[in-house]
Amino acid sequence: MVVGIIGAAGYGGAELVRLLSGHRHVSAISMGTVSLEGERIENLYPNFQGLVSGPLVKPEEVVASSDLVFGALPHAVGEAYAKLCHDNGKSYIDLSADFRFDEDEETYKTWYGKPFAHPELRKRSVYGLPELNRQRIKSLLSSGPMIIACPGCYPTGSTLGIFPALAKGLAAGTIIVNSVTGITGGGREPQRAFHFPECSDSVSPYKVGAHRHSPEISRNLNEIAARSGLSFPGLIFTPHLAPMNRGILSTIYIPMSGKKKIDDIQDLYNEFYKDEHFVRVLPQGVFASTSRVRHSNFCDISVHLDMKGDTLIIASAIDNMVKGASGQAVQNMNIILGYDEKEGLTMTPSLF
Amino acid sequence: MVVGIIGAAGYGGAELVRLLSGHRHVSAISMGTVSLEGERIENLYPNFQGLVSGPLVKPEEVVASSDLVFGALPHAVGEAYAKLCHDNGKSYIDLSADFRFDEDEETYKTWYGKPFAHPELRKRSVYGLPELNRQRIKSLLSSGPMIIACPGCYPTGSTLGIFPALAKGLAAGTIIVNSVTGITGGGREPQRAFHFPECSDSVSPYKVGAHRHSPEISRNLNEIAARSGLSFPGLIFTPHLAPMNRGILSTIYIPMSGKKKIDDIQDLYNEFYKDEHFVRVLPQGVFASTSRVRHSNFCDISVHLDMKGDTLIIASAIDNMVKGASGQAVQNMNIILGYDEKEGLTMTPSLF
Amino acid sequence: MVVGIIGAAGYGGAELVRLLSGHRHVSAISMGTVSLEGERIENLYPNFQGLVSGPLVKPEEVVASSDLVFGALPHAVGEAYAKLCHDNGKSYIDLSADFRFDEDEETYKTWYGKPFAHPELRKRSVYGLPELNRQRIKSLLSSGPMIIACPGCYPTGSTLGIFPALAKGLAAGTIIVNSVTGITGGGREPQRAFHFPECSDSVSPYKVGAHRHSPEISRNLNEIAARSGLSFPGLIFTPHLAPMNRGILSTIYIPMSGKKKIDDIQDLYNEFYKDEHFVRVLPQGVFASTSRVRHSNFCDISVHLDMKGDTLIIASAIDNMVKGASGQAVQNMNIILGYDEKEGLTMTPSLF
Amino acid sequence: MVVGIIGAAGYGGAELVRLLSGHRHVSAISMGTVSLEGERIENLYPNFQGLVSGPLVKPEEVVASSDLVFGALPHAVGEAYAKLCHDNGKSYIDLSADFRFDEDEETYKTWYGKPFAHPELRKRSVYGLPELNRQRIKSLLSSGPMIIACPGCYPTGSTLGIFPALAKGLAAGTIIVNSVTGITGGGREPQRAFHFPECSDSVSPYKVGAHRHSPEISRNLNEIAARSGLSFPGLIFTPHLAPMNRGILSTIYIPMSGKKKIDDIQDLYNEFYKDEHFVRVLPQGVFASTSRVRHSNFCDISVHLDMKGDTLIIASAIDNMVKGASGQAVQNMNIILGYDEKEGLTMTPSLF
Repeated sequence: MVVGIIGAAGYGGAELVRLLSGHRHVSAISMGTVSLEGERIENLYPNFQGLVSGPLVKPEEVVASSDLVFGALPHAVGEAYAKLCHDNGKSYIDLSADFRFDEDEETYKTWYGKPFAHPELRKRSVYGLPELNRQRIKSLLSSGPMIIACPGCYPTGSTLGIFPALAKGLAAGTIIVNSVTGITGGGREPQRAFHFPECSDSVSPYKVGAHRHSPEISRNLNEIAARSGLSFPGLIFTPHLAPMNRGILSTIYIPMSGKKKIDDIQDLYNEFYKDEHFVRVLPQGVFASTSRVRHSNFCDISVHLDMKGDTLIIASAIDNMVKGASGQAVQNMNIILGYDEKEGLTMTPSLF
Repeated sequence: MVVGIIGAAGYGGAELVRLLSGHRHVSAISMGTVSLEGERIENLYPNFQGLVSGPLVKPEEVVASSDLVFGALPHAVGEAYAKLCHDNGKSYIDLSADFRFDEDEETYKTWYGKPFAHPELRKRSVYGLPELNRQRIKSLLSSGPMIIACPGCYPTGSTLGIFPALAKGLAAGTIIVNSVTGITGGGREPQRAFHFPECSDSVSPYKVGAHRHSPEISRNLNEIAARSGLSFPGLIFTPHLAPMNRGILSTIYIPMSGKKKIDDIQDLYNEFYKDEHFVRVLPQGVFASTSRVRHSNFCDISVHLDMKGDTLIIASAIDNMVKGASGQAVQNMNIILGYDEKEGLTMTPSLF
Repeated sequence: MVVGIIGAAGYGGAELVRLLSGHRHVSAISMGTVSLEGERIENLYPNFQGLVSGPLVKPEEVVASSDLVFGALPHAVGEAYAKLCHDNGKSYIDLSADFRFDEDEETYKTWYGKPFAHPELRKRSVYGLPELNRQRIKSLLSSGPMIIACPGCYPTGSTLGIFPALAKGLAAGTIIVNSVTGITGGGREPQRAFHFPECSDSVSPYKVGAHRHSPEISRNLNEIAARSGLSFPGLIFTPHLAPMNRGILSTIYIPMSGKKKIDDIQDLYNEFYKDEHFVRVLPQGVFASTSRVRHSNFCDISVHLDMKGDTLIIASAIDNMVKGASGQAVQNMNIILGYDEKEGLTMTPSLF
Repeated sequence: MVVGIIGAAGYGGAELVRLLSGHRHVSAISMGTVSLEGERIENLYPNFQGLVSGPLVKPEEVVASSDLVFGALPHAVGEAYAKLCHDNGKSYIDLSADFRFDEDEETYKTWYGKPFAHPELRKRSVYGLPELNRQRIKSLLSSGPMIIACPGCYPTGSTLGIFPALAKGLAAGTIIVNSVTGITGGGREPQRAFHFPECSDSVSPYKVGAHRHSPEISRNLNEIAARSGLSFPGLIFTPHLAPMNRGILSTIYIPMSGKKKIDDIQDLYNEFYKDEHFVRVLPQGVFASTSRVRHSNFCDISVHLDMKGDTLIIASAIDNMVKGASGQAVQNMNIILGYDEKEGLTMTPSLF
């Protein structure tokens, strides 16, 4: 297998390089860029010295030389390469938001400011949260090459945290998702908000009531509710920055219609995810913590009740660069190619 | 003025030493301890080298030699010294929870596991959140020495964030307070949860649905609602740890009965706190951030709406060791002694 | 006193604002900029909300309205304003390197790439390390307004650490200065090297054998040696970055001609600095640590010997933004204006 | 292969569990403890949830059930288990200092305060720095089970940095090693020095002139010099703490007898390590940085000259928990068992 990455110089791309360099079925990685042609990956990322090397090439070269292509590009930049892959009979795994809204062009336009360049491609695309859509991915696959829209980082952790409660009819009011992310979420380009002296030793919210991941989480919750014949109870989402590199901790408040017992909810979550390797429902007494999923593809979930017993509080922790981005992309690749879903993602996380 | 500190070796005590050493009306600080008698403060805290020095003494010596006494002790340890001060006609400013529940012994017993040792002292004590209780403090003062119950760190930031909305009748449902604290909140004694390798580079919740500051915040909200002839709409409080030294960022969700305009709420908050030096209502577009109040006695508040417009989202930032503990204690001292409330608390915070 | 700051938007300028806002003899601060005219300081630095406000003005306005002017500008930008101040009979305190080399234009040109714009100003300038040059500052002052060249951050900590040993003839070979700085040393502009994900959780050297502060430290050591009739034994200086905001820890290796006793050296250092408020020679058993001087103007020094007893090891800690930049500038202002040298610099540092 | 770990609850042991859980030839891990019998590893380390589980057992059980045993114990605790393994014909890989000094009991006693319990075992032990002793390990192996003394963390990084220069006769005077470590170096037990509020945001030296790794580095340098028929030029070693979890950056100053060209030294280092997978000699312009070896078994080395050209400055970066401890132990296991030396250690490091 030769896999290609367009946008290998960014953090999402570099994380793909890191993960794919340890994937047993990947024999070569073709690394492409839209703006840094000729730069060598081991100079941009000295951590790769002696392990991965070579100049970045044009996207077209990547498509031509690869069996499958990842797009790790800013929104609205990669759709042309999805088309190129499609026309060449190759699957395209997209880390941007371009294909996350299926055929709902209106929402995409509202939040991302442009129409679909190739609306017809949506027939071949699917939202790639495996725990939600594994069967849809597989059935689309039977009809040929496809496009995977990898979920955003916040939507991944929060959707997995809410999924069991919502699908099983526990949610009875507006769900509040309060998330805290590490600074890699801001990407590779230096900006004042991510300048060490201005973000270290500090926690603060940003884009309150206005983050682009709100409509994506809502999209997921709508779909989950609809599958169970329920209506979506509404969402409030607030992102924050914390002084750590990796990780998203989402604390989720789900009002219920009455008091529940914690043991029942714990059982429900355990049962719901019992076959999902990458979702770990923690036992009572252990709280989800970003450090324990660092560098791994796990989503850790801990289940709690407020004092009165009628609000479910879920804590969900992921590594925003792995399960929240590049790891999930590799998981999707494994599904598409019929590999073990864990291949390339088996690293045991460390506490420290 | 000679001021005394019982419990000077702990973080709260050391922060009092730091602040009082720069207070113009404090001529000497008597430093006491219940367990480290004879230890020198400049050895425990080398940051004091050349500025503050001397051995820690017995609590009784502190009371005897001081005009006013601070208690920076664990819960249930200091009540005896409050009594001693009272019997000697000296005011006592308590940083523990012992006097925070007024005459409500039941709640105190439930959460702190013991009855009041001296119930009669509650007639001379007041909950010392100046923005809420300045007049009560002053009127109690007219009848002699008193006891100030300094608020807990979480209750300070969250109460100040909710106060205007609740007092003005905006709150129409359960209020959710999602707080993130720095590690100094855990105190001076090394513990695994605060061991650098286990808490750095990580965010996680703790004591979900079971933190002792829940009943204290509820107490405050009840009082605020009652003063306006309203009923308290209920509270859910979840604390988290983040890898920073100082600071609490509370993100507060207040359901309203209908849609409001952000400008009206901004005006309401501006107006409400216009005479409070230590509460800074930030202009639209600026988000409360713990780094900007570090080492200062400010509570920064930013005001937001969710997308639908019917939930108020407040972000409140304090330095947990200053406005959340020792700075507020000094502010209370200034009120009791008739000094400018800002005396000893004028340091301009730094961004970095 | 109205004091002016040209370059108030940078970190050095903002730190001057912070310190001067608490200075009892400063009635107003005129804040200037060369590139951000009209920007409001409280928007650039929300930490100043409610305390310091107003738009940045042109440098010429600052000079016109101030009794004394600070220049917190990049190298080679401020010399024109030094001239303007000089022509208007006002003292100018420069935080850049422009005046640090006295009349040695050659060294300046080699390291900073341009000749002196106004060589004649050097007759009115002095290197402003008070512990080294207090008398020279005062004597120059007697003949009118002057220019102070504030030392660089690394030179301040390392010169103070070496001064006693070198002046007293202990240094017998090449002195090695191994320094570690916090990230504020890189200034306000976002750059990849100071991008949180690339500098957090990491230590690395930079500009090994080639940092501009090498010739400045050498200049100081030459002067110290010459004053004692000794020759300068040579210097190797290596800077490093560490994941903290503030602070420089310099570990200094001074070969001696034979074995010495640690007590004698401790006595020598104690005696040497006994009248210097801002230099704290720590007792044996306490190691200099950047956290303990944070936000303060202190230079902490601890004195050690290697195992064989013939190499002196000095650890010196400063806050790079205070004693290493803006605090020392205020200290110089106090000297020029005849104030207590500690005025505006009395904040007790915190351990945490 | 069943491998055993005595001391699995400590950080070194847990890191072994992490690495061995991904090792293709390890079918089971027997986890032992001297003080926490019955505790479950996944409770002590929630990062292992779902991946590694089970109660810790007695050391004797570990020895009985394993083909090879790792000792991750404090000094002087594990020698009895080394003996037990020896008597049972099993190799023992020791992470403590007990076997690092070969037959030099005097040095061991001086620094670790006790005599050898089983001096005769030294005939079957070897200092396990593969880049230095690979052949000795293999030749000892031919005569049966053996004991590997894994090097200390500081000695690993500094010895690898000095090795080429010293072996090739470049070192002409006392070598200075200035090292900065992350906090995991202090182990799992909470202590004040590693309490987040006291070590975050700070850099400081410790045990100046008195660290136990000094004699170990000297031991290595003596051996290297002797192999080349040279004499050891002397060593000064100073450790520091920095606010990061993992990593040691050693900056090494090697005086030479005259000026050298950087290209020649770069070539020498490149050539010297060209067959060593785990030592990466970085190209000119790239500085060794701890972040780029994080979680990996690499030692990154960058080569520099001071300005005058006669002092070699080497920067060496390792992950203290991997190449500095458990990774190197696995590397030694691979050598003993005839596996590819990289097995279980192939993870590509990340920049962030």
